[in-house]
Amino acid sequence: MINTLYLPELREMLTDQNSVDLGEFCEALHPARTAEFMEGLTADEAWEVLRHASMGTRVEIFSYYSPEKQVKILETQDRESVAELIAELAADDRVDILQQLDDDLVAELLRLLPTEDRRDILRLQAFPEGTAGSVMTTDVAMLDEELSVTDALQELVRQAEDVETIYYLYVVDETRHLRGVVSTRQLVSAMGKPDTRLRELMETDMAVVNVMDDQETAVDKVAHYDLLAIPVVDSDHRMLGIITHDDIIDVVREEATEDAHLSAAVTPLEETYLRTPIITLSRKRGVWLVILFIGGLLTAFALQFYEDAMNRFHWLALFIPLIISSGGNSGNQSATLIIPAMTTGDIKIGDWLRVVIRELAMGLVLGGSLALLGLVAAALIAPEAIFIVPCTLLLVVLSGTLCGATLPLLFKRLGWDPAMMSNPFVAGIVDVLGIVIYVNVAIALESVVIGG
Amino acid sequence: MINTLYLPELREMLTDQNSVDLGEFCEALHPARTAEFMEGLTADEAWEVLRHASMGTRVEIFSYYSPEKQVKILETQDRESVAELIAELAADDRVDILQQLDDDLVAELLRLLPTEDRRDILRLQAFPEGTAGSVMTTDVAMLDEELSVTDALQELVRQAEDVETIYYLYVVDETRHLRGVVSTRQLVSAMGKPDTRLRELMETDMAVVNVMDDQETAVDKVAHYDLLAIPVVDSDHRMLGIITHDDIIDVVREEATEDAHLSAAVTPLEETYLRTPIITLSRKRGVWLVILFIGGLLTAFALQFYEDAMNRFHWLALFIPLIISSGGNSGNQSATLIIPAMTTGDIKIGDWLRVVIRELAMGLVLGGSLALLGLVAAALIAPEAIFIVPCTLLLVVLSGTLCGATLPLLFKRLGWDPAMMSNPFVAGIVDVLGIVIYVNVAIALESVVIGG
Repeated sequence: MINTLYLPELREMLTDQNSVDLGEFCEALHPARTAEFMEGLTADEAWEVLRHASMGTRVEIFSYYSPEKQVKILETQDRESVAELIAELAADDRVDILQQLDDDLVAELLRLLPTEDRRDILRLQAFPEGTAGSVMTTDVAMLDEELSVTDALQELVRQAEDVETIYYLYVVDETRHLRGVVSTRQLVSAMGKPDTRLRELMETDMAVVNVMDDQETAVDKVAHYDLLAIPVVDSDHRMLGIITHDDIIDVVREEATEDAHLSAAVTPLEETYLRTPIITLSRKRGVWLVILFIGGLLTAFALQFYEDAMNRFHWLALFIPLIISSGGNSGNQSATLIIPAMTTGDIKIGDWLRVVIRELAMGLVLGGSLALLGLVAAALIAPEAIFIVPCTLLLVVLSGTLCGATLPLLFKRLGWDPAMMSNPFVAGIVDVLGIVIYVNVAIALESVVIGG
Repeated sequence: MINTLYLPELREMLTDQNSVDLGEFCEALHPARTAEFMEGLTADEAWEVLRHASMGTRVEIFSYYSPEKQVKILETQDRESVAELIAELAADDRVDILQQLDDDLVAELLRLLPTEDRRDILRLQAFPEGTAGSVMTTDVAMLDEELSVTDALQELVRQAEDVETIYYLYVVDETRHLRGVVSTRQLVSAMGKPDTRLRELMETDMAVVNVMDDQETAVDKVAHYDLLAIPVVDSDHRMLGIITHDDIIDVVREEATEDAHLSAAVTPLEETYLRTPIITLSRKRGVWLVILFIGGLLTAFALQFYEDAMNRFHWLALFIPLIISSGGNSGNQSATLIIPAMTTGDIKIGDWLRVVIRELAMGLVLGGSLALLGLVAAALIAPEAIFIVPCTLLLVVLSGTLCGATLPLLFKRLGWDPAMMSNPFVAGIVDVLGIVIYVNVAIALESVVIGG
């Protein structure tokens, strides 16, 4: 939804070259709101409006534009002033934006940047997607441990404009090894003793994350210790940057979407649904559909193997979809309950016996309930199957809950990602099991009835 | 995993009544780490250790205990000292903990609390689960707009111990109406002009959330505006509390788990998997399994309806599981891509045509690929079906992608939660469609072949 409320006024100001009003428009509201009101403008118009904002505000408003508009502006506007903007953007954001641009344009823009910014961009670009390094920013206040509280406060005021968060001050030695952290809260509390050194104030027992760690590790630590930001270090404990709370929220949302995609057997997308090309989407879905299809062929072979029984019991085919979907659904439920609980650490491998016992109990309750319904259904549709369908349902639901719960645990035990044990895989395994159980129950119960 | 590293030393210190070492143990590390090292102690032992910490540290360490241990301590230890602890806990955390206790115990503890704390707890308890009010805290710094920068800094130092975040100062009038916000960053930057009033510094255009809004609204605003905390107001814009960044991360994770549960047709749990009683879990799963089973009966009726065809084509039953699972899997993929994108606003109802066109294209690509595989499979298993199986697969995958994409959009259009259109429902609908398509393709192609 594009907010068009101020578009006519903005266009009029542009036509009139009304610098005063344009400047005021840029500065009056929260930059996120200003960006919303500008979303309907063309790239040329938006850039023209931004020229009337101070550099700080310009950068902030620009950061709140949609990625499409950001890319459009960088592609079409004057290279030199675009480079000036990029130099001021947050270190992590600009890497993300540059990734969307043409390689030639990136090369051209990089040449126009100050050496330090250029190096910083190239370094951040080098960290693989999904690592802590790929989401960190290098705009962070690092202070010497010998600074006094007064000096630190002054340094803070000086740096406040340039760094992403002023709520933690990281204390480093002369070769940038991370020594400790002082929160602004501690600094403010210590204002009564202005000569205290940071060395005396700082906490040395603090959470850090290695630059090559999974970004999920950073989320876990920030969530566990209720942090605003977490420092990122290399293997020598040298400080490289921080990951701030806003990026943590983005990572949590991103990972949740990835897990959802995996659970339905889609390789996670790097872009939003609407921005992913159809050919990419087809590949990310097709791979799994094909694997599942080939696995699913087992059901056809199994049914062919049981051809005799199929011919003997003409009603057998009627209940196949119902039975295998009941098994698949209960298996999906179990897997969906277990997998996120394993990710958040609520369930550990050592809990496997508890999980199995619980799923066994639930399999009996749920399978029993469906068996009762199955009894009624069989009585209506095929009275010959009045005992076979309920017995099968009980066993199939039970194998569904057990497979859904134990397969992710097994994957974890083998060191694989339990989220790979997606719902369609559980369902596919239970499909084959379901058919085998169904036919064998039919044969067994029939011989009992004939025997009796 | 319980960390047992320090357990022997801790127990020795307790036996020796070694107050100095116990006190040092409590204060030396980050409270989260201290809590980890104590996880193996009994409730009695842990409480005894905590007695050696200052009240501030005691509260912090206690907050990092597992919920089970917290409940155990509150239930078993001396009521008066437990009440003292509760009075100091964060306003939102203690409401959560009290919820886990027996009603009689809560009543007894409430009586021991200072009036103000008791009132605060009762007020917070009144907000329904899932609202902004239910996750907010009332420990927040509210300042008068006439305060100067110097006064505000002093007030900040004074309040720093008691409030949850000192990074925003909320400016209110005499009847607690929220007027604006000043960040600590702004305050620090303004230290050069100590006589500036907060009124002149404060931002008045700020994001707020209504106390009865969905907690997800708070998350969206915090994520959109990159905030550390968001103020919670009533309908008169009177400030009631704030939701801080750490609670926002918890809400994001909680909502992701809820969505995952819904997607597999499980009513979201209020507790973790292992702590939810089996009977509750069975109910939350059973309701949906029964509904899906009753819907699934349609497949049995459909197959009964097509009995003639089933008898005529003896190979028909062989491919039923394969065909319906292919349709279900492609439908699940579409629903899983569309639903989270609708939640985050990437896809709006107005985008329906774009979505349909994309899913149509993908249905053709994916259905086409499976059709090729189906051709090979039919040639191997039942050469009579060599054209029927591929044609069916193409059509079934196509209806899978279209149902998976359009049903959530339809639900949204009707004002229902698109997440309710869970994967098993999509699969169930596609199951029935798949059977109808399969049999009709078989009949149609056979008559063409016979006709030709």
